[in-house]
Amino acid sequence: MFGVTVRDHMMIAHSLRGEVFGPAQRLHGATYVVDATFRRAALDADGIVVDIGRAAEQLHAVLAGLTYRNLDEEAKLADINTSTERLAQVVADRLAARVHAGALGDTARELDGLVVTLHESHIAWASYERPL
Amino acid sequence: MFGVTVRDHMMIAHSLRGEVFGPAQRLHGATYVVDATFRRAALDADGIVVDIGRAAEQLHAVLAGLTYRNLDEEAKLADINTSTERLAQVVADRLAARVHAGALGDTARELDGLVVTLHESHIAWASYERPL
Amino acid sequence: MFGVTVRDHMMIAHSLRGEVFGPAQRLHGATYVVDATFRRAALDADGIVVDIGRAAEQLHAVLAGLTYRNLDEEAKLADINTSTERLAQVVADRLAARVHAGALGDTARELDGLVVTLHESHIAWASYERPL
Amino acid sequence: MFGVTVRDHMMIAHSLRGEVFGPAQRLHGATYVVDATFRRAALDADGIVVDIGRAAEQLHAVLAGLTYRNLDEEAKLADINTSTERLAQVVADRLAARVHAGALGDTARELDGLVVTLHESHIAWASYERPL
Amino acid sequence: MFGVTVRDHMMIAHSLRGEVFGPAQRLHGATYVVDATFRRAALDADGIVVDIGRAAEQLHAVLAGLTYRNLDEEAKLADINTSTERLAQVVADRLAARVHAGALGDTARELDGLVVTLHESHIAWASYERPL
Amino acid sequence: MFGVTVRDHMMIAHSLRGEVFGPAQRLHGATYVVDATFRRAALDADGIVVDIGRAAEQLHAVLAGLTYRNLDEEAKLADINTSTERLAQVVADRLAARVHAGALGDTARELDGLVVTLHESHIAWASYERPL
Repeated sequence: MFGVTVRDHMMIAHSLRGEVFGPAQRLHGATYVVDATFRRAALDADGIVVDIGRAAEQLHAVLAGLTYRNLDEEAKLADINTSTERLAQVVADRLAARVHAGALGDTARELDGLVVTLHESHIAWASYERPL
Repeated sequence: MFGVTVRDHMMIAHSLRGEVFGPAQRLHGATYVVDATFRRAALDADGIVVDIGRAAEQLHAVLAGLTYRNLDEEAKLADINTSTERLAQVVADRLAARVHAGALGDTARELDGLVVTLHESHIAWASYERPL
Repeated sequence: MFGVTVRDHMMIAHSLRGEVFGPAQRLHGATYVVDATFRRAALDADGIVVDIGRAAEQLHAVLAGLTYRNLDEEAKLADINTSTERLAQVVADRLAARVHAGALGDTARELDGLVVTLHESHIAWASYERPL
Repeated sequence: MFGVTVRDHMMIAHSLRGEVFGPAQRLHGATYVVDATFRRAALDADGIVVDIGRAAEQLHAVLAGLTYRNLDEEAKLADINTSTERLAQVVADRLAARVHAGALGDTARELDGLVVTLHESHIAWASYERPL
Repeated sequence: MFGVTVRDHMMIAHSLRGEVFGPAQRLHGATYVVDATFRRAALDADGIVVDIGRAAEQLHAVLAGLTYRNLDEEAKLADINTSTERLAQVVADRLAARVHAGALGDTARELDGLVVTLHESHIAWASYERPL
Repeated sequence: MFGVTVRDHMMIAHSLRGEVFGPAQRLHGATYVVDATFRRAALDADGIVVDIGRAAEQLHAVLAGLTYRNLDEEAKLADINTSTERLAQVVADRLAARVHAGALGDTARELDGLVVTLHESHIAWASYERPL
């Protein structure tokens, strides 16, 4: 199995609902350093998993829809707690939709899976892995 | 599959038994930067894998039982070579016992697995993965 | 010259005032991974710059006064733009006040200087250096 | 499952063939920071996955056959695009051949798998995973 | 003293002239992860050292003139050995010329200095510091 | 001013004397990831600060005299507390002696200074800077 990973980041404000979150129930924020890994059993005719440049562009486009925002006011996120692990899923699902729509090219439709990891600090991170 | 990772560290002295270890048969030491990843197929009602704060506390508690010690003198480790990979297992098993005892809360009993990685330097690390 | 550095982090929401900040004028947030370096020409009688444990505690205490907050609503920060470089100065000045008040012990009053670095992402950070 | 990882690097020139590569079709170069992970279900009699020293030596030997070279002129690589993911496979296969030849000792023949990751920059890396 | 740092990278081929360079006399290559630090005694009216966005753009523009190239064929570099430390100087001088030309805005002309660091691997890097 | 840095590591056991050290008074250990920076105002005739290969060899040789040992039993360290900052000085002074003895070549005698940083964990490090 092959994998290619690109890294980017977003900077957001948010708060979390539920006693378990303690002080994180207050409005605060995070930089998420985001790694997106594209997985594939065999390389394409060019000898790659996916074009790294295009992969980076698509990840950047997904993060552009989240960064420099207060996620508490985003209509599409109104029903969820924007925990790090849930946001990893949001990013992965939006990237997957782009892959399915052909944004990474035709051969990228043969991708087997996707892993998105959000680093919230030097001591904590979360990931979500899904098939494509 | 979701994962949440927390990082901490311990600083220990030890020696290793067996010719394969060369100079590491002498009493020496290591800082192990320890990553513990909790894995779960679906998020709980709060939208998380596990509370990051509690996960960090439990990892810290496990490492508190090992750090600032000479592992050669620890009765519970007397029968094993405290190689990096074996210590990863020791940490993982102790964390797993805490999860099973409820230290991470009731919903954490639905965790699917645990990965513990010990970084012994910038050029070597070892990990152990187990189900929960 | 000797230096000792400890690392911690804070997670805050804020917005920045001024056209130069572009989309960062919106309410957003950041994780700041914070490095505080204590500098000293000669070691103390124990052979150290400062006790690492106490240094870490004092840095943590300073960051506890900022983390999990919306800095736009902090009275003490009302007059400034909370840019990364300005926040580095705020953290350094608060740490310096603690050093002067004896929080790191008597010998820490012989410290020569302090550098605080705030990492806002994997591709950008800022620092402030001052004498003590 | 246990894993042990060692890190080394190589510095090469190359060019890539195919429009998808854009400016990377020109002769350029890369430092690849290379991580090789050896995986095994159970530890050997010494309590290890593989001797870290020998693993590092073997990885270094494999990279010595590639580093400080223009890969466009390497006969053994003439038929492939030396993309990061393909080079990960080349390194993994050469390491696997060494394992099978006994270079890591007899017990290393019980290894279950191998993962090789090549970091081409702070924002992009690729990996290849194979059984042993 | 304040500092703001931005990180980017370039991927180049080159060879070095002189017996001291051993195998690096052959055509090979490198990824340089490049950190540019802008230093300033006092913040500007917006409370910043320099706009991080513009600083990143200018660093990217300088690196765009070097990346994906064989430096042995660059006319402007014909007279020098493109060692890591020399390239740090090249990048710093080109960045300084842009600052002086106003590319970072008028207030950036008050910058006191610039440090450029090129990381050639996880175990070696070089830097060049100059006034502005 | 130019600088070139090489990184290596050592793994030692030790204990520290003095109440300030708390649990670190017990025999424990550390991995120190060691960065040695050589500084120089102007490059030599080859366009370098120092040969990176030779610098790495000399740092390795210095660390070979410390690693895989219990520092409490080293005669040459009997009079000092082997705190991280003091060990940074020990490594720097031993490297400086080698530079003065010509181990880095004749032109390396024109080096202006040396900085040695010892990382004891992901959250703490210490450094010592001296002229050459």
